Amino acid sequence: MRNFRIVRPDGALRPLLQQKIDNLTKPKGSLGMLERIALRVGMIQQSLTPALHEPQNLLFAADHGVVEEGISLSPKEITWQQTLHFVRNAGTGIGFLCRQHGFELKVIDGGVDFDFPAGCGIIDRKIRKGTSNYLYGAAMTPDEFDRCIDVGAEMVDLAIDEGCNIVSFGEMGITNTSSSSIWMHFFADVPLDECIGAGSGLDSAGIRHKCDVLRRAVADYAGDGSVADLIRWFGGFEMVMAVGGMLRAAERRITILVDGFIMSACILAASKLYPEVLDYALFGHVGDEQGHRRLLEAMDAEPILHLGLRLGEGSGAVCAYPIVESAVRMLNEMDSFQAMQITKYF
Amino acid sequence: MRNFRIVRPDGALRPLLQQKIDNLTKPKGSLGMLERIALRVGMIQQSLTPALHEPQNLLFAADHGVVEEGISLSPKEITWQQTLHFVRNAGTGIGFLCRQHGFELKVIDGGVDFDFPAGCGIIDRKIRKGTSNYLYGAAMTPDEFDRCIDVGAEMVDLAIDEGCNIVSFGEMGITNTSSSSIWMHFFADVPLDECIGAGSGLDSAGIRHKCDVLRRAVADYAGDGSVADLIRWFGGFEMVMAVGGMLRAAERRITILVDGFIMSACILAASKLYPEVLDYALFGHVGDEQGHRRLLEAMDAEPILHLGLRLGEGSGAVCAYPIVESAVRMLNEMDSFQAMQITKYF
Repeated sequence: MRNFRIVRPDGALRPLLQQKIDNLTKPKGSLGMLERIALRVGMIQQSLTPALHEPQNLLFAADHGVVEEGISLSPKEITWQQTLHFVRNAGTGIGFLCRQHGFELKVIDGGVDFDFPAGCGIIDRKIRKGTSNYLYGAAMTPDEFDRCIDVGAEMVDLAIDEGCNIVSFGEMGITNTSSSSIWMHFFADVPLDECIGAGSGLDSAGIRHKCDVLRRAVADYAGDGSVADLIRWFGGFEMVMAVGGMLRAAERRITILVDGFIMSACILAASKLYPEVLDYALFGHVGDEQGHRRLLEAMDAEPILHLGLRLGEGSGAVCAYPIVESAVRMLNEMDSFQAMQITKYF
Repeated sequence: MRNFRIVRPDGALRPLLQQKIDNLTKPKGSLGMLERIALRVGMIQQSLTPALHEPQNLLFAADHGVVEEGISLSPKEITWQQTLHFVRNAGTGIGFLCRQHGFELKVIDGGVDFDFPAGCGIIDRKIRKGTSNYLYGAAMTPDEFDRCIDVGAEMVDLAIDEGCNIVSFGEMGITNTSSSSIWMHFFADVPLDECIGAGSGLDSAGIRHKCDVLRRAVADYAGDGSVADLIRWFGGFEMVMAVGGMLRAAERRITILVDGFIMSACILAASKLYPEVLDYALFGHVGDEQGHRRLLEAMDAEPILHLGLRLGEGSGAVCAYPIVESAVRMLNEMDSFQAMQITKYF
């Protein structure tokens, strides 16, 4: 795996940013989380007047070998159908949200089990038609792992070339909540059962079966126990691409907008490789998937929205974008007490 | 007080709206609160394709006689300074949020203790230069109460004439958290002490003094005990105007976007007069003010945002607007499974 040189934002700016925020014409702290978001974006951009440009949602799609164990309510063909749907139709969940907030939506085939028609608008970075079933070995080879990391980084570089300085990541991959649960178990040190939820809507018998399968997968794990190996063994191509993209975004000092349970598991995994990546992240929302809240707590992450979203695709991240924009506008557009010659109040 | 004829939205549309929402290309329920917001707006507009037009934030300002008891950290002159600031400068909290989301901001002087210059942009509906101190009698006369209700209704009628079909209400009035706490005590049946918080930032000694004063005010209440009388006795002009505006908005079947603690107290009061008003309300956020969460619970209200805002001015309502817009776009822009010939998933 390539090296990333991720540097923490220079702390020297923090007191100046905080002072600027505290001197805006409002009771101190009264804009709550908007103030904390403004502080983070200001620190990332190392600026008292940060700006958001050309947001992009990078949506990686891939299939998972473990789907053959029947641990997802949705059939596997949903992966290719929805992936195609994202580029063919404006009427997807992520589609209307991207349109609303001016996001460019990029859909990347990281390994969907389907031959997409040429020129359909999907960016082809297919590693293979789905990972191997991690019940019987690693989901991907070390070489495939490296290539996924590189694809994620490549997509972020492309976005930055296009003027983007805030990027969200989304995913489409039936059963990828399972990979996320296993990563969470290892990387947040939470008992496996407590990391497993209903995914796209399993009933309690379905959840029991999912638990059985994932317990076996974890028990039979035969890798070297390193962070990178655990990511490789249980990950999906689309998820490892997101990890690579997040690391590259942090290396290049742009803001990462994290979506739901799966993307939170990805940045948790990324942070086990490079803890500094978290300094570049904003967390779009906390969803309904069991364990998401706990996953965020493990990273000390404060989600922007609490809307019970569980669609994936980057929807929770993009939906939170106007709040990030509000925070940045606060810094740039609000007057200070000094400028207004108004009595400072509290 | 005038009569309002507020009719509950016709329930016949509810199953059709729910069916439409359930057939959009997403796992059922996976857009969480967006689905519930869409249902509510659809019901209010009695339409499967609702639309939001020309949003307005009506910001009522007034002073409170009880301020002389020293129960607010902020000095009284903040009311007039900020009120003028709202119309003179783009750089207020509510200013940048209105600009971001295309709201027209109307600032109404309901009774500020200041002579605003003519032509400054403030709508003059001054009842009097501040209410009477409710420690020694009713804050306003029955006639003043009626006039406040009428001013609120007038402002909503004007907004509707201008094409608005979603209205938020804001306030500026030093010490108006105190009136809100007292209303909450009476109308949500919560012990007074549990309704009282830090306002714009009191310390614990300050909160104790505020409790003492409000306890005395409640103990000495000498009115007839009716809902309207309690509103009149302890309310601010700006708050009663908001109550009138909310009732008129429900009567005319447009969507009400409720701001923080004070506006939540206003719609609670309104709902004690006309319970149906709540069918027309969306709750923008839950803030940090002690008791706001409990106040919302008393109305079974689900706040859209949880950002710890406590600025007032309508800021939490306007900040939540893009989420309401997302919900409406979901209904109008997302494809159905039938239209897409895609496997329905869960």
